[in-house]
Amino acid sequence: MDLECASQETVKQGLLARGWPPIKGFSKHVKTKVLEFFSLLIKLGQDDPRRVVHSLKAGLALTLVSLFYYYQPLYKSFGVSAMWAVITVVVVFEFSVGATLGKGVNRGLATLLAGGLAVAAHQLANLSGRIGEPIVLGIFVFLQAAVSTFVRFCPQIKARYDYGLLIFILTFSLISISGFRDDEVLELVHKRLLTVLIGGSTCVIISVLVFPVWAGQDLHNLIASNMEKLGIFLEGFGDEYFKMPEDGESKEDRPFLQGYKSVLDSKTNEDALANFARWEPRHGRFQFRHPWKQYLKIGALTRKCAYRIESLNGHLYADIQAKREIRSKIQETCTTMSMESGKALKELSMAIKTMVKPLAADIHIENSKSSVKNLDTLLKSGLWDDETDLLEVVPVATVASLLIDVVTCTAEIAESVNELATMLKFEVVEPTVSPEKPETGQPKIGIS
Amino acid sequence: MDLECASQETVKQGLLARGWPPIKGFSKHVKTKVLEFFSLLIKLGQDDPRRVVHSLKAGLALTLVSLFYYYQPLYKSFGVSAMWAVITVVVVFEFSVGATLGKGVNRGLATLLAGGLAVAAHQLANLSGRIGEPIVLGIFVFLQAAVSTFVRFCPQIKARYDYGLLIFILTFSLISISGFRDDEVLELVHKRLLTVLIGGSTCVIISVLVFPVWAGQDLHNLIASNMEKLGIFLEGFGDEYFKMPEDGESKEDRPFLQGYKSVLDSKTNEDALANFARWEPRHGRFQFRHPWKQYLKIGALTRKCAYRIESLNGHLYADIQAKREIRSKIQETCTTMSMESGKALKELSMAIKTMVKPLAADIHIENSKSSVKNLDTLLKSGLWDDETDLLEVVPVATVASLLIDVVTCTAEIAESVNELATMLKFEVVEPTVSPEKPETGQPKIGIS
Repeated sequence: MDLECASQETVKQGLLARGWPPIKGFSKHVKTKVLEFFSLLIKLGQDDPRRVVHSLKAGLALTLVSLFYYYQPLYKSFGVSAMWAVITVVVVFEFSVGATLGKGVNRGLATLLAGGLAVAAHQLANLSGRIGEPIVLGIFVFLQAAVSTFVRFCPQIKARYDYGLLIFILTFSLISISGFRDDEVLELVHKRLLTVLIGGSTCVIISVLVFPVWAGQDLHNLIASNMEKLGIFLEGFGDEYFKMPEDGESKEDRPFLQGYKSVLDSKTNEDALANFARWEPRHGRFQFRHPWKQYLKIGALTRKCAYRIESLNGHLYADIQAKREIRSKIQETCTTMSMESGKALKELSMAIKTMVKPLAADIHIENSKSSVKNLDTLLKSGLWDDETDLLEVVPVATVASLLIDVVTCTAEIAESVNELATMLKFEVVEPTVSPEKPETGQPKIGIS
Repeated sequence: MDLECASQETVKQGLLARGWPPIKGFSKHVKTKVLEFFSLLIKLGQDDPRRVVHSLKAGLALTLVSLFYYYQPLYKSFGVSAMWAVITVVVVFEFSVGATLGKGVNRGLATLLAGGLAVAAHQLANLSGRIGEPIVLGIFVFLQAAVSTFVRFCPQIKARYDYGLLIFILTFSLISISGFRDDEVLELVHKRLLTVLIGGSTCVIISVLVFPVWAGQDLHNLIASNMEKLGIFLEGFGDEYFKMPEDGESKEDRPFLQGYKSVLDSKTNEDALANFARWEPRHGRFQFRHPWKQYLKIGALTRKCAYRIESLNGHLYADIQAKREIRSKIQETCTTMSMESGKALKELSMAIKTMVKPLAADIHIENSKSSVKNLDTLLKSGLWDDETDLLEVVPVATVASLLIDVVTCTAEIAESVNELATMLKFEVVEPTVSPEKPETGQPKIGIS
């Protein structure tokens, strides 16, 4: 043991003698890491300046409720219970209005309900005498914690009321247990509820009034931009695929062909935003009972299309590609199919963004469908000579077939966007600039 | 106004006279909903009995810490601060050991750090006199809340320390603000820290000792079962695709062909489990620094394969299918490709589950690769006569091509599973029952 210690000492002295080079290296490493971290933070702020605003809003809310401590008349009426206003602000204040409102309402209602039940439990336990009381209280606390914890596993409840159940367990336990030591249970519940309400409404008011971030708007934009990403890929795909490798640089460094990848994993994000959006009141072009489910449906169809595009993308970079003459035979139709679906998706995305009926998209979808028919005719016409090696046809046939799938998916997306347009009575604006055939003098309101 | 009220009265009286049928209907509706809810809860418990156990554990932990209130000697030393032990248990106790440990460590460290800084802030503010104090404190609270809230947007920090930052904001605010009213700040911090530690360790001890649920084990099983789901699809695909529709019932009602769908959206779940697993100590076959990243890599490759399978699935139910004679020509090779990749995936899944080197999988992958070569030969051999309509070749060519992609994906998965096997030194067990060529007398340990 002593020997070990001694040898460690020697090593330490050796390090000291050499001016602690590991520590020098370490401090340099820390410096690099800190610099990296700061540049990451700056990038986060630049990517979405609302994050900076949100942080300032959170600071403001917290400073406001801390007035309960500083300002004597306020402190007199609440005392240390003012702590609950501070806690409420810290845990309830979220990025979007919907998330803040959802948490606030959950917290308020759960505190009210649990407070009431805890008072009842306290009265019941009181009946069982000084020795029986902790036992009865213990049984109540155990039962409600176990049952509420189990109910939290229920997916439908987890999505909307998970936080409420947590606060229910917390408040019920705290109040029924405190009741054992403090007979003023009703006043305790009253103060707790009031401070939670003050904290919660501070959060909601600041999040609604100061540069509000609406989860509904974010979901709306996310669905539209996901569609646009697929559109960008499809518009570029035809040219990229049929271009010969020797024409230019490597295909792998095309960022516009990689944008669709984020769509593959967007389900969780969409679900969360839809859950928040359901709490939001009417704002801008969004009503209280906006059809968020339809957005999720469109999102699911967009993802289905993204899966096909992922398969297509694999063929873009495949080593084995069909010969030039074979490819050139179907180049035009395939490029049209891809281009027209891409344009349709971009039009649909634009239609959602501007809330205008996607009339132009229908034209592109018709074009892509007629390209599919052209392809059929081309294949039937026996365009291929007898020497054509089938092995070389397979890659092209696959790409063509996947593009046909993409056309089908795009038509499905268009259908669900049209359903949304009907639900929300999107404006009708004639897609082509053709003043010679105006049906009515002004833009019509879509009729379902 | 009066008229309106009067008419409402009439309606109410009418309803009363008819025995309130809407209320009868409503109560029936509520009864159905309640029954549905209970059967859902029972199903949740049957699907994973660990949920029932977890709920009981949560109840137990909460009842244990409530002893701080009931038991006089304990209450004497902590007083109302015992509340923080209760709060800690409610918010820290999570389903898996990793999640509980992660939250507990976050809460403990954040309370320590924020407590220390808040004491320092309190001392600084004290210097600025009775009027300056709340202003200085307010500035500190605002700054730390804004900065910490902003740092929470950083994805790397959000994944592991989000809860810690929340508690940091909470504790710093509460202690620095309380300090304005209560000069015993050090004692406050001390009590808070102690009760948080007691609450946190109660959670950790119960979650580790009483029927522990390990996030690492769950991730391990999830990765293996996802692979198995794809394997089941591929094993069944060949027969389903080449079976003529008139042979039997509709293809759509095959549950075993739908199991792969859950793999498409498993990313969020895998990421969360890996984050929790990183907190877990050595348990069973898992070390503390288990290569969870490799599991995520395998998961990503499995998902890539699932995207291809989603495209394949679309062709299973396509309306336009190739003629019987065309299909029958490549039926055997395609069925073998699909079957062998499916078997390989199932073997890989089994290898992960049992932590044995996936030697049998390599054989199936070799088989599937040689099927790809057979297909190439078949296509080159000009097996097709001149009358073959290319339009009818396209669907079959697509399926074949997607299957080739699946074979490639499977080989990639196998490679990453082999990497995992090397990292974790999976056991080597000879795959075939061939006692005539035992290389060593006992199972070897894999050498990297």
